[in-house]
Amino acid sequence: MRIDAPRQYVVDSLKYALNPASIAVVGASRYKAKVGYKVIEGLNKWGYKGKIFPVNPRADKVHGLKAYKTVADIPEPVDLVFIAVPAFLVKMVLEHTVAKKAKMVVIATSAFKEIGRGDLQDSLTLYCREHKLPLIGPNLVGMGSPYLNFNCGFIPYLPIKGPVAVISQSGANLLAALGASKTTNFGMSFFVGLGNKADVDFSEFIVYGGQDSHTKCIATYIEGLDSPEAYIKACQQVVPTKPVVALKVGGSEIGVKAAFAHTASENEGTDDAYYDEIFDQAGVIRATTWQEFLDVSLALGQQPELKGDNVVMITNGGGSGLLSCDHFEREGYPMRELKEISLGLGLKIRAYMPMFGSPLNPVDISGTASPVQYKGALRQAMRDPNVDGVLCSICPTAVTDVPAVVNIAIEMYEAYKYLGKPFVMECQGGAECHEAIMKLRAHGIPTYPTAEQSVNAMIALRKYNQIKNR
Amino acid sequence: MRIDAPRQYVVDSLKYALNPASIAVVGASRYKAKVGYKVIEGLNKWGYKGKIFPVNPRADKVHGLKAYKTVADIPEPVDLVFIAVPAFLVKMVLEHTVAKKAKMVVIATSAFKEIGRGDLQDSLTLYCREHKLPLIGPNLVGMGSPYLNFNCGFIPYLPIKGPVAVISQSGANLLAALGASKTTNFGMSFFVGLGNKADVDFSEFIVYGGQDSHTKCIATYIEGLDSPEAYIKACQQVVPTKPVVALKVGGSEIGVKAAFAHTASENEGTDDAYYDEIFDQAGVIRATTWQEFLDVSLALGQQPELKGDNVVMITNGGGSGLLSCDHFEREGYPMRELKEISLGLGLKIRAYMPMFGSPLNPVDISGTASPVQYKGALRQAMRDPNVDGVLCSICPTAVTDVPAVVNIAIEMYEAYKYLGKPFVMECQGGAECHEAIMKLRAHGIPTYPTAEQSVNAMIALRKYNQIKNR
Repeated sequence: MRIDAPRQYVVDSLKYALNPASIAVVGASRYKAKVGYKVIEGLNKWGYKGKIFPVNPRADKVHGLKAYKTVADIPEPVDLVFIAVPAFLVKMVLEHTVAKKAKMVVIATSAFKEIGRGDLQDSLTLYCREHKLPLIGPNLVGMGSPYLNFNCGFIPYLPIKGPVAVISQSGANLLAALGASKTTNFGMSFFVGLGNKADVDFSEFIVYGGQDSHTKCIATYIEGLDSPEAYIKACQQVVPTKPVVALKVGGSEIGVKAAFAHTASENEGTDDAYYDEIFDQAGVIRATTWQEFLDVSLALGQQPELKGDNVVMITNGGGSGLLSCDHFEREGYPMRELKEISLGLGLKIRAYMPMFGSPLNPVDISGTASPVQYKGALRQAMRDPNVDGVLCSICPTAVTDVPAVVNIAIEMYEAYKYLGKPFVMECQGGAECHEAIMKLRAHGIPTYPTAEQSVNAMIALRKYNQIKNR
Repeated sequence: MRIDAPRQYVVDSLKYALNPASIAVVGASRYKAKVGYKVIEGLNKWGYKGKIFPVNPRADKVHGLKAYKTVADIPEPVDLVFIAVPAFLVKMVLEHTVAKKAKMVVIATSAFKEIGRGDLQDSLTLYCREHKLPLIGPNLVGMGSPYLNFNCGFIPYLPIKGPVAVISQSGANLLAALGASKTTNFGMSFFVGLGNKADVDFSEFIVYGGQDSHTKCIATYIEGLDSPEAYIKACQQVVPTKPVVALKVGGSEIGVKAAFAHTASENEGTDDAYYDEIFDQAGVIRATTWQEFLDVSLALGQQPELKGDNVVMITNGGGSGLLSCDHFEREGYPMRELKEISLGLGLKIRAYMPMFGSPLNPVDISGTASPVQYKGALRQAMRDPNVDGVLCSICPTAVTDVPAVVNIAIEMYEAYKYLGKPFVMECQGGAECHEAIMKLRAHGIPTYPTAEQSVNAMIALRKYNQIKNR
C-alpha cells in the first residue's frame, strides 16, 4: 500500500526482521511437509540462537518446543511474529501481536490481494500502520542473512556470505538466487522476499541496506511499484555510496495480468519506458534478464566503479575477444584500440605474446599463452595510468595451465588493487573453468563463464560511475 | 578463399578428416608442451584405432611410435596429414602430401593471412585446389567426433555424444563448447575448427552435417564469410531436414579489425544487416550471444519444431513465469492466455493447483506444487489438441521434491512424445537443479537454468518451423 517516502520507524524496526532475539511462529505445525514446520526446522538447522515460540492451539509441543495457544499466551517478550495460518485467521493473530507489543510481523500466508481480496489485505495494512507494527508480506517466502546464521521462512538454502543484498517480490526467483549462491560463489549480505508488500516496501529495505555494513550492492527484483516516489527517494539516499540494481518484470501484455495474479502487483497503464524513467531518476542500474541481474549485482558488489572508457581486455582466445568487443559496442560502450588508450602500451604487451598474437584490444596473447605471459600482459595493463579497467579471459587450450593463470590473476589483482581500477574475468569451458570461477569470485574478482556476461559486468561498473557523477 | 558453391569432391573427402584410417602428424614433437606432441597424445588418449605416423626429421621415435623424416617416407597409405610445423615449411610438406596421394590435409599452424601473409596462404590454397587435396585451416585447433572416439588436434576434451555439429572458426570458443559438453550434457555429433578456412569452408561441412546420421542440428560460429553464396546454397540444401544456427562476430568497429587479426576474416563493408540478409536467405536461425548460440542449438537438436504459437507454460514459481512471458513478448513471440488457446483447459488444470495458483498462462501451480500436481497439469497441457508446445519450470521451494518432479516430467514427455510437440524445461536454483538439468538433457529434454534461456530455446523451435513453411 502506497507510501510517500521510506518511513523511519519501519527502517528502525527492520533489524527485528533480520536479527530478532525471539520469534513466535503462528501456525507451527507438527507435520513435516507444512510451512509452519519448515520455518522452525529452518531456524534450527541454520543456527538461529534466539528463542522460538511455536503457536498452535491444538498442540503441546512442536519440533520439541513448548507450544502456545496464542501469541498473547507467550510469557516472554517477542520481537518477530511469523504468521503461516489461513488468511481468515490473520486478523486475529495481528490483534494478539499488537497486544503482545511485538516489534515486527511477517505474513507468509497467500490468498490475499493476488486472488482479489484487496480489501482484506488493505484492512490488515491499515490496522498495522495504526499500531506502528511493520508488516512484511503477505504471500512471501521468508528472509535471512548468512552473517547472522538466520534463515526464517520456507527456504531450503542459506546463501554464502558476500556483498549483495537481494530484495525480491518473487519467492521462487529469490530461491533461485539463494540456491545458486553456494554453487556459483554468489555471496549475499541479506535477503528478503517482499511478496505482496502490503506495508513494508522496497524503499525501507533499500535504506536498511544502505546502513548495513556487509551490503555493498542492493539488488531489487520488482513486479510492480506501489510507491515509486518512495523507491526513488530511498535510492537517491543510498546510491551515492552503494549501487542499486533493478530487474522489473510484468511489463508484457500477459505479464501485467500474471504479475497481479502472482503478487497483486499493479502494472496497468505502466510500460517499460515508465520504469526506465523511474530507474533513471532513482539512479538505478536496470538489468533485462535474470542472469544479467545476478551478474551485474555481483560485479557492483565486488569491484570499484569504472572511472573511464579505457578498458583493456587480455585474452588467450581471439573468439572470446570478438564476442566481447562486439557486445561492448552493441551495448553502447565501444572498446578503444590500445594505441588510442596509451602510446607504447601495445609495444610493452607485445613482449608477452607470440608473433601471431594481436595487441589491438582485445589483446590476444594467443592460445599458447603461458602464466608468465599472462602475468606480464596483466601487469602492463593494470599499472598503465591511462587504463581505467581490465578484463581478462581464460580459454583452456591443450597447453593452458588454468589453475596457474588463476593464481597469476589473483596475484596481479592483489598487487594493483590499490589503484582502484575494476578487474573482471571470464573463464569459458568445462569443469576446470567452473573451479576457476569459484576461486576467483572467492578472491573478490567477479568472473563469468561467457564473454557477454563479463562485458555486462564491466559496463555496469561504468554506469555506476556515470550515475554518481551526473 | 572464395568458392561459388560447396564442392562435391571436398564434401566426399570430409570423411577422411573425421574418420581417417591413418594419420601422419607432421611436426610430431618429443616435447610434451608442443602441439605436435599433444596431437598424438590426444589421438591415443581418446581411443583412435587407426594408424598414426609421426613425421619428424630429427627423431627416431615420438610417443613410442616410429617416426619418419617426411610424409613421402611413410611406407603405407595415409588418409589425413596433420601439419604443425612453422609456416615457412608448410609448402614443402604439402608437396610431399600430394606426392603421397593423401586424401586430406589439416594445417594447424598459425601466422598466415591473419598476420598479413595473405599471399602465402593463397598460394597454398591454389596449390591444394590444383591437386584436389582439400585443406582445412590454417590456424586451427582441430576436429573430432565422440561417435568415432576421434579427437585430432590440441584439444583437452572430447564432447559427449549428441545431436549438435559445431563448426567454428574460433578455436577457443570451440574449446569452450567442448569443455562445457560434459559438465552441461551438451551432446555433439562432430566438431571442427575451421580457422582461416583457406580452402574448406563452412558450406562443405554444412552439407556433410546434412548427410551425417548423428547430426540433428548444425551450429556455425562465423567470424567472416568469404563465400556467402556457397554458405546460402549449402544451408538451403540442408535446412529442409535439419536446422542451422549461426553466431556471427566481428561486426563491431573494433571487431572488424580483431576478426582479421584472429582468423584473417574480412568484414570491411559488411554490417549486421548484411549478415541478417544472408542468414534470412539461407534459412538460418541467428543467435546474438554465445550462451544463446549453445542453448538454441541444443533445443533444435533435441526437439521437434514448434508448429504454432500456442505455448503453455507450467511453473511452480510465479516469478519464473513472469520472466518468461515478458521475454516471449520482448522477442516478438507473445504468449497467449489459456482461455484463448483452449476452452476448458484452464478448468482442467485448476484441479491441480491451490486456490492462490493462477491458470492464466504462465500457469502458476504455486510453490506448494507436488509431483502429482505437476503430472496432472503437464498431462492436460500436453494432450490438449490446441496446445503446440509445453514449457515447464521447476523452482525448488522447501516443499518441492525436485527429483520426483524431474521423473514426472520425463514420464509425461515419454508418454506424449508421439504427438510431436516440443517440450522445453527450466530448473532454476542450486546443485539439485544442476542435477535435474543434466538428467533431463540426458533424456532428450532441453533444460536451462534461467527462464529467458528456455524461452529462447522455444522461440528457436518456432522460428525453424516458420523457416521451413515459408
